[in-house]
Amino acid sequence: MKSICNYLVWATILLLATASANAQETKQFTLEELIPGGKDFYNFYPRLPMHYQWQGDRLISIKNDSVWVTENPQKPGKQSFLFSYDHLQQTLPKEQRGEIYHVNFPETQEQIVTFYGSKGIGLYDLKDKKAVGFFAFPEKSENHQLSVYNTFLAYTIDNNLYVLDRTGKQTAVSNETDKGIVYGQTVHRNEFGIDEGIFWSPKGNKLAFYRMDETMVANYPLVDISARIAQLKNIKYPMAGMTSHEVTIGVFDPNTQTTVYLNTRGPKDHYLTNVAWNPDEQFIYVAELNREQNHLQLNRYNATTGDFDKTLFEETDSRYVEPQHPVMFVPNHPDRFVWQSRRDGYNHLYLYDISGKLLKQLTHGEWEVTEVTGFDAKGENLFFESTRPTPMDRHLYAIHLNSGQMQQLTTESGIHSGTISISGKYLIDRFSSSNNPGKIALIDIKNSKTTLLNSVNNPFQDYNIPTVESGTIKAADNETDLYYRLVKPYDFDPSKKYPTIIYVYGGPHSQMVQNRWRYGSGGWEMYMAQRGYLVFVMDNRGTSYRGDEFEKATFRHLGVEEAEDQMKGVEFLKSLPYVDTNRLGIHGWSFGGFMTINMLLRNPDVFKAGVAGGPVIDWKYYEVMYGERYMDTPQENPDGYRESSLLNKADQLKSRLLIIHGDEDPTVVWQNSLQFLKSCIQNGTHPDYFVYPGHGHNMMGHDRVHLHEHITRYFDDFCK
Amino acid sequence: MKSICNYLVWATILLLATASANAQETKQFTLEELIPGGKDFYNFYPRLPMHYQWQGDRLISIKNDSVWVTENPQKPGKQSFLFSYDHLQQTLPKEQRGEIYHVNFPETQEQIVTFYGSKGIGLYDLKDKKAVGFFAFPEKSENHQLSVYNTFLAYTIDNNLYVLDRTGKQTAVSNETDKGIVYGQTVHRNEFGIDEGIFWSPKGNKLAFYRMDETMVANYPLVDISARIAQLKNIKYPMAGMTSHEVTIGVFDPNTQTTVYLNTRGPKDHYLTNVAWNPDEQFIYVAELNREQNHLQLNRYNATTGDFDKTLFEETDSRYVEPQHPVMFVPNHPDRFVWQSRRDGYNHLYLYDISGKLLKQLTHGEWEVTEVTGFDAKGENLFFESTRPTPMDRHLYAIHLNSGQMQQLTTESGIHSGTISISGKYLIDRFSSSNNPGKIALIDIKNSKTTLLNSVNNPFQDYNIPTVESGTIKAADNETDLYYRLVKPYDFDPSKKYPTIIYVYGGPHSQMVQNRWRYGSGGWEMYMAQRGYLVFVMDNRGTSYRGDEFEKATFRHLGVEEAEDQMKGVEFLKSLPYVDTNRLGIHGWSFGGFMTINMLLRNPDVFKAGVAGGPVIDWKYYEVMYGERYMDTPQENPDGYRESSLLNKADQLKSRLLIIHGDEDPTVVWQNSLQFLKSCIQNGTHPDYFVYPGHGHNMMGHDRVHLHEHITRYFDDFCK
Repeated sequence: MKSICNYLVWATILLLATASANAQETKQFTLEELIPGGKDFYNFYPRLPMHYQWQGDRLISIKNDSVWVTENPQKPGKQSFLFSYDHLQQTLPKEQRGEIYHVNFPETQEQIVTFYGSKGIGLYDLKDKKAVGFFAFPEKSENHQLSVYNTFLAYTIDNNLYVLDRTGKQTAVSNETDKGIVYGQTVHRNEFGIDEGIFWSPKGNKLAFYRMDETMVANYPLVDISARIAQLKNIKYPMAGMTSHEVTIGVFDPNTQTTVYLNTRGPKDHYLTNVAWNPDEQFIYVAELNREQNHLQLNRYNATTGDFDKTLFEETDSRYVEPQHPVMFVPNHPDRFVWQSRRDGYNHLYLYDISGKLLKQLTHGEWEVTEVTGFDAKGENLFFESTRPTPMDRHLYAIHLNSGQMQQLTTESGIHSGTISISGKYLIDRFSSSNNPGKIALIDIKNSKTTLLNSVNNPFQDYNIPTVESGTIKAADNETDLYYRLVKPYDFDPSKKYPTIIYVYGGPHSQMVQNRWRYGSGGWEMYMAQRGYLVFVMDNRGTSYRGDEFEKATFRHLGVEEAEDQMKGVEFLKSLPYVDTNRLGIHGWSFGGFMTINMLLRNPDVFKAGVAGGPVIDWKYYEVMYGERYMDTPQENPDGYRESSLLNKADQLKSRLLIIHGDEDPTVVWQNSLQFLKSCIQNGTHPDYFVYPGHGHNMMGHDRVHLHEHITRYFDDFCK
Repeated sequence: MKSICNYLVWATILLLATASANAQETKQFTLEELIPGGKDFYNFYPRLPMHYQWQGDRLISIKNDSVWVTENPQKPGKQSFLFSYDHLQQTLPKEQRGEIYHVNFPETQEQIVTFYGSKGIGLYDLKDKKAVGFFAFPEKSENHQLSVYNTFLAYTIDNNLYVLDRTGKQTAVSNETDKGIVYGQTVHRNEFGIDEGIFWSPKGNKLAFYRMDETMVANYPLVDISARIAQLKNIKYPMAGMTSHEVTIGVFDPNTQTTVYLNTRGPKDHYLTNVAWNPDEQFIYVAELNREQNHLQLNRYNATTGDFDKTLFEETDSRYVEPQHPVMFVPNHPDRFVWQSRRDGYNHLYLYDISGKLLKQLTHGEWEVTEVTGFDAKGENLFFESTRPTPMDRHLYAIHLNSGQMQQLTTESGIHSGTISISGKYLIDRFSSSNNPGKIALIDIKNSKTTLLNSVNNPFQDYNIPTVESGTIKAADNETDLYYRLVKPYDFDPSKKYPTIIYVYGGPHSQMVQNRWRYGSGGWEMYMAQRGYLVFVMDNRGTSYRGDEFEKATFRHLGVEEAEDQMKGVEFLKSLPYVDTNRLGIHGWSFGGFMTINMLLRNPDVFKAGVAGGPVIDWKYYEVMYGERYMDTPQENPDGYRESSLLNKADQLKSRLLIIHGDEDPTVVWQNSLQFLKSCIQNGTHPDYFVYPGHGHNMMGHDRVHLHEHITRYFDDFCK
C-alpha cells in the first residue's frame, strides 16, 4: 500500500505552504484551498523560496529559475550567481528546448551539471558555460536512469528496456513481445523498498535490471468505462496464496552488448530485493527472501558470469523478515558495508566485511534508524535519522564507524531530515514541528553551529486556525504508549458537545502522528474542525517506527489488535466532557478503509457513521507480497483470514457506512467492496456506496476535492 | 426493455394473491410480504384454487395436482376426475420421474396430453391411461419446443440447435464452434415481439430457426466479482449507430436431415421478424424491417428451396414501423390471414388474401387491438382484446370476418383476457378491476351468458389497506388526457400535508395505470402509503395503447415531452392541499430511472429527492434495436441525442439523488450510471449511488426486498 503512504506524506506537505496574499481574519477555509487538486490549492502550494543541494562542499541554492553557489557554507550570505534555467535553454538547439524541471549537481566538484526537462536530460559544463550533451527522450520512454559519468541513458518503452549512448544510438536490452514479461521496471509490487528496475553500476559500465515474468499470474479485469463502449484493461494481480510472478536479474554490458542473468536459486516465486553493486562493479548483492518471507539470505553474484558467489549471512524470524534497504558500501573502504536490520527488534545499522563477517552492530536501543543520510567521503562517519529519543521526533545523528561514538546533530524537537556534504563537514537540515511549519538550516558538524537558511510562514496565519493537540494513551495491552492528535475548532468551547470523527489508517508502513507541522494534521481535518467537528487520529499497534513487537502484534490476524487499540482511543474520547459520544464518526482509506468498516462491525453500537475508502474487505483478495507477509496464505492461516475478514461480519452493520471505491483500483481491487455489498445485501444490512469512475486506489486531481465534499456531506448528513 | 415490462406485469400479479390466514386488524405490511422474493411473499402468492384450459370444447380444470373435466361447459358444476400428477409419475419409469410443472391438453379432442416436468416432457394417453412417450431433456438443454403431434423435440445446448425424435435419437441441426454465432434462440434483443428462435411448422414436418451471427458486434465487458478472482464475462452489445448483428433463418427437415436458408435480401443488419408458416408448410412469411425501422416488407419464402417468393405488401412510416405480431392464418381458410398494423394510427386488424391483397380492415377507431385471443375452428369469428371503449379497460370482442360485425363479449369494467374454446362457443374470461382482485368466468358466446367459475379474495383484507384513486389530467399539449393513480394512507387526513413520491416509468411498451386490481398499484406503493407517503403514478405521452401520435410524440428526443407531461402531474399534485410540495420525491427504474434523473435535472428546484434504478443516461449507450427506433442513430440525430442526454445536464443536480445499478446489467449497461457519476464529479454535483453485485437489469430474488428497503430508507432520510 505504498500509494496511500505516499499520499499521506504528500497531504502533509501542503501545510508547508506559503501565505495567501488575500487572507483575512474572517476567511473560511475551502476545500479548494485545502485539498491537493483543488483549484486554489496550488496558489497556496509551496514555491519554497529556495532549494538547496550540495556540490562537494559548495552549497548550491536555486531560487525560482536562478542557480547560485555559496563557496563557503560557513558564510551563507555570500552567494554568487551561476546560471539561469533560461541560459540552459539557450545553450540547446531549438528542438531540445522544453520545460526544465530540475537541475542536479554532481556529488563531487566535477563540472558537469545535469538538467532534467520535458524533452530530455541535458549536460551542462559549468566551466565552459555550455551544453555538452543531451539525451533526448525517445517517444513513450519512461523510467529514465542516467549512468554515472552520464555515459548512457537507460529507459523502458512499454515492457522493454533500452540504452541510449551519447551519440544517440539506441540499443535494445530486451526484445520481448509477450506483454506478460516486463524488463527494467519495479517488481514485487513495490514492496521490500523496491521502486525501480534499473541499476547502473558505480562507474557506469554495467546495467543490472529486473526481468519480471507475470505470464503465470491471474488477470484481474479492470474496465475503462470512459470509452464509447467500455473497454477491458486486464492487470496482473497475484492474490494471497495464488500463483505469483517470477523475477530474475539481468546484467547488460553496453560495451560488449551482452547480457548475463544471475543464477539465482530457490523457488521461482521468491523475492529478489535490494539489488546493490560493489564499488568495483564485479559483484552484485541481492537480499533474497523466500515466499514465506521468514528467511532472508544476503547473496553475492559474479556480475560478469552471473554465477552465485556466496551467501554472506542469513536472517530468519518466526513472523517475517522485511528487507527494505540495500547494502551500502563504506566510501574509501570497499571491503565494508552497512546493513539495516530489525533482527534485535528495532531497525539498526550493522557493519559487515565482504566475507560476510559482522564487524559490529553500530546502533542499539529501543529506537529505530529511519533513514541513512550518507557517509563522509573518507568513510569515517555515517549520518542518519532516527526515532531517538522519541518516536514523535526524527533527529539527525552522526556515528563514527571505528569508535562507535554517536553524536546527536539536531536539538530542536521536531522532524528533521538532512543532506550531507561530501566531506561530511556540513549538513542541510530541513525540519518542522507542531508549531513550526518548516525551516531549513545549515549545520557545521565540527562545532554543531546551526545557521538558519530559510523558513516557511504559516500559510493560513490570517485564518481562524483550528488547534491541534497531542498526547498519549495506553494501548489495549495496558502497557504501550500510543500517540494521538486531536484537532479542535478555533473557537472551541469545552462546555459544548462536539461531534467527533476518528481518522484512521492503522496499517504497517505508517505513522500518522508525528511532531511535524500541526502534528501532521491534514487539510480535511482543518476543514472538519472549521465545520464544528473534533478530529482524532491515533497510531495503533501494527504501525511503524516503534519496533518489531509493536508492529508484529497484529501478525496473522490483521484488524484485531488495531481495533482494540482504536477502541482505547474511543474510551479516551468518551472521557472528554466535550465529546458528544452520540455523534462519533470514523473515516479512513485503504488499510484505513478496512479499519473503518472493521471498527463499525466489531463495535456496532459505538459509531453514528463511518466513511471507508478503497477498503480491503478480505485479505484473500489482497496481493501476495503484502498480504502473505502479514497474514501468511489463506491455506496456511484459515482462522486468521476468517477472523480478519469483514465479509462474515456484514450482519453486524448498524451505523451509517459510506464505502467509496475507484472503479479502476489496481491496489485494493474493486471486488473487495463489491463483495462486501453483496454480503450486506444477503444479511439485510444497508451500507451506502460511491464510485469514482476512472480512478485508481486514490482519487487524484480536482476529483479529490469532490471526494472530500462527498465525505464531509456524509458526516453532515448522519453525524452532525 | 422487455425485462422491465415483464417485471411490471409480474409485480401487479402479486395483488391477486389469496388471503392470509393470520391476518389481523392492526397488522402492518412488511416488504417481505409485499415484494416478490420476500420470504413471506410466497405465502401470499396466488395458489389460484383452480386453473382452466380447453380441450376442444371440454373445460379442463386443474386444482392442486388433480385434473378434472367438464364435458358440458354450460354445466360447470358437473366435473369428473381425469387423473392426478401422481398418476402421471407412476406411468413413467423411475429415471424419468421428476417434478411436474404443467399439463397441456391438445387444442382438439385428441387423446394425447403433454406434461412438462423437471426431467423432460411426457406424453400421456387419456384413453389408455398410460404414458406413451417421453422426451428426456439432454443435459444443459434449453428452449425446448415440441413439434405438433409431438413427433420431435427441438432445443438448444449452448449456441447450437438439436432435434430429438421419439426413439431418443438426437440430430445436431448446427455444429457451430464459434460462440459468436447462435442458433435457435431469440434475436434482435427481444424487440419486435420476438422471444424465441424455434418455429415448428403447423404439421410438425419442418423446423424454421433463427441463426444470429454476432461475431462483428462489439464485446461489452461484464465482470463477475463473486469468483475468487473477478472474472470477465463478455456480452455482445451493439450500441446505437454501431455495427449490429446479422440474422438469417434456416429451415431444417428432420426427415431428410437437410437445412436450407431463406434467401433474404437487403443489408445484413436488417430485422427478420415475426416468422410464420403457412398452413400447408410450403411457405414462410417474414416481416422484414430495414435497420432504419421505417420500411416494412411482408415477404414470403419457399420453405423447401429457401427462395424468395413474393413481397405481399409494404408499410412505411415517417417515424417508425414496429411489427410485433406474425401473420395469423384463418382456420379453414388457408388463403387468408390477419395482420396487425398501426398504419391508421391505432393497432388494428387487417384481413388479407395470400396474394397480398387487402380484403378489408376488420377493426377501426380511436382504440387499439391489444391481443388476438383466437379464431373459432371454422374461421368465421375472430376474438380479441382491446382498449375500446377506454384505455383503462381491456374488453373481449368477437368479430365476424365476413360481415365485419363486432360484438363486445364483456361488460364489467376492468382488464379482461380470454381463452376461446375450439368451436368458438365458450370463452374463459379472467378479469380484475380496481376493486376486484380477480375473477374467472365462463362466457357462453351465443347467449352472452356469464357464469362465475372462481374468484380471488383480497389477500390483505384484514390489513389497513391504503386507498387508490384514479383520474385524468391534461397533458402538456393541453389536449390529451393522461391517466393517473394516487395512493393514500388508509388513515388519510386531508387537513395534513403528506410527502409525495411520483413513481414513474414513462417509456414505450408500458401502461402503468389500468383498471386492474387497485389500478395496478404495486406492493412498494402500499408500503410507502403505510409509512405516510402519497404515491402518484401517471402515464405520460410516449407510453402505449393510446395510438401512434401519443406514443410517437417523443420521437427523436426521448425525455422531453415525457418530462413536460410528468410536470403536469406535479402541477396537479401541487394543487392538492394535502400534498407537501416541499417533500416531493420521484422514483423509477430503467426508462423510469432515466425519467427520474431527467426530471430532477430539468426541474432542479422541484424535488427533494429521487431514486433512479438502472437508468439510461445517454441513448448512445443503449442498443441498436430499441435505441434507433426511438432516436435514430447518434450520427443521424446529434441534436436529439444531445437534448436527451443526462450527461450534459449533470451540473443541474440540486436534489438528493440515489442511483442504483446492477453490476452485470446486460440491458442498460453499467457504463450509463458510471458515466453520469463521472460527469457529476466533474461538475461538482453529488448524487448518491448503490450497486447490486451479481445482478442484471433488475434485482431478483430476496435481494429485491433489500432493494426496496434501501429505496425506502433514502426517501425516509431525505424526503420525509
